[in-house]
Amino acid sequence: MPSQPSKALEVVPNPHPERDYEVSLEIPEFTCLCPRTGQPDFATIRVRYVPDRLLLELKAIKLYIWSYRNEGAFHEDVTNRILDDFVAAAAPRFIEVVGDFTVRGGIKTVVRATHGKRPEI
Amino acid sequence: MPSQPSKALEVVPNPHPERDYEVSLEIPEFTCLCPRTGQPDFATIRVRYVPDRLLLELKAIKLYIWSYRNEGAFHEDVTNRILDDFVAAAAPRFIEVVGDFTVRGGIKTVVRATHGKRPEI
Amino acid sequence: MPSQPSKALEVVPNPHPERDYEVSLEIPEFTCLCPRTGQPDFATIRVRYVPDRLLLELKAIKLYIWSYRNEGAFHEDVTNRILDDFVAAAAPRFIEVVGDFTVRGGIKTVVRATHGKRPEI
Amino acid sequence: MPSQPSKALEVVPNPHPERDYEVSLEIPEFTCLCPRTGQPDFATIRVRYVPDRLLLELKAIKLYIWSYRNEGAFHEDVTNRILDDFVAAAAPRFIEVVGDFTVRGGIKTVVRATHGKRPEI
Amino acid sequence: MPSQPSKALEVVPNPHPERDYEVSLEIPEFTCLCPRTGQPDFATIRVRYVPDRLLLELKAIKLYIWSYRNEGAFHEDVTNRILDDFVAAAAPRFIEVVGDFTVRGGIKTVVRATHGKRPEI
Amino acid sequence: MPSQPSKALEVVPNPHPERDYEVSLEIPEFTCLCPRTGQPDFATIRVRYVPDRLLLELKAIKLYIWSYRNEGAFHEDVTNRILDDFVAAAAPRFIEVVGDFTVRGGIKTVVRATHGKRPEI
Amino acid sequence: MPSQPSKALEVVPNPHPERDYEVSLEIPEFTCLCPRTGQPDFATIRVRYVPDRLLLELKAIKLYIWSYRNEGAFHEDVTNRILDDFVAAAAPRFIEVVGDFTVRGGIKTVVRATHGKRPEI
Amino acid sequence: MPSQPSKALEVVPNPHPERDYEVSLEIPEFTCLCPRTGQPDFATIRVRYVPDRLLLELKAIKLYIWSYRNEGAFHEDVTNRILDDFVAAAAPRFIEVVGDFTVRGGIKTVVRATHGKRPEI
Amino acid sequence: MPSQPSKALEVVPNPHPERDYEVSLEIPEFTCLCPRTGQPDFATIRVRYVPDRLLLELKAIKLYIWSYRNEGAFHEDVTNRILDDFVAAAAPRFIEVVGDFTVRGGIKTVVRATHGKRPEI
Amino acid sequence: MPSQPSKALEVVPNPHPERDYEVSLEIPEFTCLCPRTGQPDFATIRVRYVPDRLLLELKAIKLYIWSYRNEGAFHEDVTNRILDDFVAAAAPRFIEVVGDFTVRGGIKTVVRATHGKRPEI
Repeated sequence: MPSQPSKALEVVPNPHPERDYEVSLEIPEFTCLCPRTGQPDFATIRVRYVPDRLLLELKAIKLYIWSYRNEGAFHEDVTNRILDDFVAAAAPRFIEVVGDFTVRGGIKTVVRATHGKRPEI
Repeated sequence: MPSQPSKALEVVPNPHPERDYEVSLEIPEFTCLCPRTGQPDFATIRVRYVPDRLLLELKAIKLYIWSYRNEGAFHEDVTNRILDDFVAAAAPRFIEVVGDFTVRGGIKTVVRATHGKRPEI
Repeated sequence: MPSQPSKALEVVPNPHPERDYEVSLEIPEFTCLCPRTGQPDFATIRVRYVPDRLLLELKAIKLYIWSYRNEGAFHEDVTNRILDDFVAAAAPRFIEVVGDFTVRGGIKTVVRATHGKRPEI
Repeated sequence: MPSQPSKALEVVPNPHPERDYEVSLEIPEFTCLCPRTGQPDFATIRVRYVPDRLLLELKAIKLYIWSYRNEGAFHEDVTNRILDDFVAAAAPRFIEVVGDFTVRGGIKTVVRATHGKRPEI
Repeated sequence: MPSQPSKALEVVPNPHPERDYEVSLEIPEFTCLCPRTGQPDFATIRVRYVPDRLLLELKAIKLYIWSYRNEGAFHEDVTNRILDDFVAAAAPRFIEVVGDFTVRGGIKTVVRATHGKRPEI
Repeated sequence: MPSQPSKALEVVPNPHPERDYEVSLEIPEFTCLCPRTGQPDFATIRVRYVPDRLLLELKAIKLYIWSYRNEGAFHEDVTNRILDDFVAAAAPRFIEVVGDFTVRGGIKTVVRATHGKRPEI
Repeated sequence: MPSQPSKALEVVPNPHPERDYEVSLEIPEFTCLCPRTGQPDFATIRVRYVPDRLLLELKAIKLYIWSYRNEGAFHEDVTNRILDDFVAAAAPRFIEVVGDFTVRGGIKTVVRATHGKRPEI
Repeated sequence: MPSQPSKALEVVPNPHPERDYEVSLEIPEFTCLCPRTGQPDFATIRVRYVPDRLLLELKAIKLYIWSYRNEGAFHEDVTNRILDDFVAAAAPRFIEVVGDFTVRGGIKTVVRATHGKRPEI
Repeated sequence: MPSQPSKALEVVPNPHPERDYEVSLEIPEFTCLCPRTGQPDFATIRVRYVPDRLLLELKAIKLYIWSYRNEGAFHEDVTNRILDDFVAAAAPRFIEVVGDFTVRGGIKTVVRATHGKRPEI
Repeated sequence: MPSQPSKALEVVPNPHPERDYEVSLEIPEFTCLCPRTGQPDFATIRVRYVPDRLLLELKAIKLYIWSYRNEGAFHEDVTNRILDDFVAAAAPRFIEVVGDFTVRGGIKTVVRATHGKRPEI
């Protein structure tokens, strides 16, 4: 098995910091393990943010998301941790992270967390 | 026939009480009996809540929902009772419960009730 | 031909008057006659209301809707009349009635009327 | 209440009898009464036919369909009767009639009947 | 809890036995219990048949389907048992029964069984 | 070729002027000619208005829309002209006209204009 | 009003006559006039053909379709006439023409005609 | 990281071997690693089979599918291997396996393989 | 290869400057090259603006969009540059530009930027 | 501008030549130039083939498709050329290529060509 990819996020300078604008990312290939049963969970992660001076780099996001593949993670917790990590890396003016998980026990769960005040754009 | 499952809800500590965030649950497998005719009714129950110090535990929700299987329940009443029980168990900052029932007599009914003030997140 | 069903609406006590909550009804089987041409018109009627002390009873609504089957009724008028009748019967805190009619002369018409102030729930 | 429209179907000459071709009609505004309960039923009627020397005239079809409005009719029977009447009126090379009824008692019914051999076109 | 409804199916004479035609029924409100875990399962049952001398009566089908509510039943078995019971009751020229079950363990199951030779209509 | 239908709009008294309510019309069969190339353009026109003392009459709207068939008209201009003509004819409390045009040069255009203040209903 | 565009179809050599292959065209912007009422009708025309030595040229098809704009034409007839004209122009190995007309009098009509034997490709 | 789940499939006796019938399974949570890049791939696996004397057991299928999580596997190969393993375990009369993979390099791949002759049911 | 089309935008006078109204454009055929890898990227560009004294001319927009075909451009940057160019050309009262890019590395990106204050219309 | 990518296709050995099975590829990012006007055209290319001893390699397909970016190509011709090139490279038992082009002049074109006899799998 390949070694686990890194959780390090990379950033690049925002070419248009003079303006509030919104970047939305949809990542349908998130998978982790249920901490209680060890069984795999699947989710689509959706991110919407207004950059300040930094943009999140796509390839590093891909590796970051991939790094959860063999980690245990509860739905509510992992969505908040992704939010925290993205805030720490890029300090956006506003960011929303949604974890949209597949059905377990006949129940579908979606977790949504935000940081900062959503600007009117 | 198996004995009726319990209406007891379980809760776990919210790992991120420092932040308002939203958990949405969709439970398409609710069924109860019409108190007037004794015939089965079917619904999808949708819950959206902002936890305070407690999270609702998924497996207990499943058993709770299942507990209505052989009980009589009116559409408007059962939606409000689910809301009351979830509030009593987890004391969320905000919660919305929607009961989306299948067609009866050519009419489709949806009941929506909330508790607390919906935060801007 | 069977005799025309009654326009009398029935109500039952609201089991949860302590709370603003919303009941939505979708009735896709409305039909009446065009007063000008005598030809049948078809519509879906959608009702959304916040009950005060009374709930509208489903079976009576079905007969009420059925009572228009052989009556002449203009789109704009009949939607407002349904609204008036539902207000008179149940005195809801808020109510919206939508008449969504099928295409006539290549034009689709939807009429929407409300009574009371829509509460934030 | 207006008098019941006629069940007489009109036909016009087929301008292209030299060729097998197919005419499909979708009529979403069929309604009749349940012979057992007297309550209204609703259906979409779909017709697909290969004309021989005659075409079914649209306006007469509309009145024909309208003529069932205050008649009692079972799902299986009425679909076959429409087929019989269209065959008697236009003697098509092939015809299929589908009655697609709305939900009753939680069950949706579709009836499909044909006359003649479906040509390969 | 009300007593279990009957598995007896009723039939009525086919008003058009002179012709092969098809009746399709969709019953989205089937529920039974998993024989292994006792937990509820949910399915849509779809039936398509060509009647011979008898039609299946809708209200009895509804009660028949409802009778599984508190019975244990495996997906593959129950679909075949419904097929057997419908054949025994109405002896159709052809019949297909589909059991379309909701997701369990991340897997969706559909079972399809037929009796007799599907006629070309 | 038949003579061009009239642009005269007809109005009828609003039977419920005591209340703000909304009438929505969708007219998918608008066509005109491009003033630059002479080629046909196609659009769906959507109208949403709150009547004051007058309602727009459907049959006259149909002829009005038809009257553009052989006229040259730019997308932005014709949407505003329809709005002006409807305002002149019925003096509604509020009105919105949307011109939703088909693709030209790989680009889809939608024009939306309003008159009056949209009431909260 | 601009002069009527030509009904002349243009063809170009088929670059791959050594092989049976299929070209499908969808033309959603057909309009003509009803010969009885003079009112406009609208349709999508769908063509599917297997070329022999000639291909139909797109720009000429566009003008050909446009040429019906101010002509009277019955649904069944015009679909067959388009088929005849395309056969005369390009002599394809197989061709199917579908006229998919918008609702008139609550009825939607689709006409489908073919020429030649549909090859297995 | 939890130990890899087993590739052993379990079977149970077919309760209706007297009849050809079809079982369809949809498993949207397949993931493996690309043997060339080590990066995760995602697919939905669809299985359709006609059992002979044995049925495939659902829980074991879930673990089997899970066992690929940290294995390298090419799209075309893994679909065929799943087919081979299911044939070896249950010897069905007919079986089809479809691997429906997510986009890689802007290209979506679907692989479909069968074993045995598809019966007419 | 043809020479690169011009980035020059053309404008025409707004025929209705007396009113705030909205023009929406959807351009699904944008393609450029990734500055890092040289590989092609694809996007739909959506523009929504409230014109002041000038309208953007459609044919010039088409050439402008086409001009990016062989240029390197990052998602976030190019969306903002299109916004800047449209503002410079037409000085609208309000404008929003959305770049909706296809999946790269399993991640879908959408960038949205605005200029001016969105009027209430 | 980067140099044009290569049209050379790569192949790898088929790991399961003992069996007829089907590989489907969907490539939504094809673009070329119209030979008459020099303007860009866009298409989705769909390939479905039954490999013999060779599989088409995905990364080379991507570069092959990319190589048309600045070439002139007619719809009917380019679809057949892609088919010819894929046959020459991998000699599949059966292959179908579909070119699904975006609207030009209000007309949508789809071209479909096959090589070999489609096996029953």
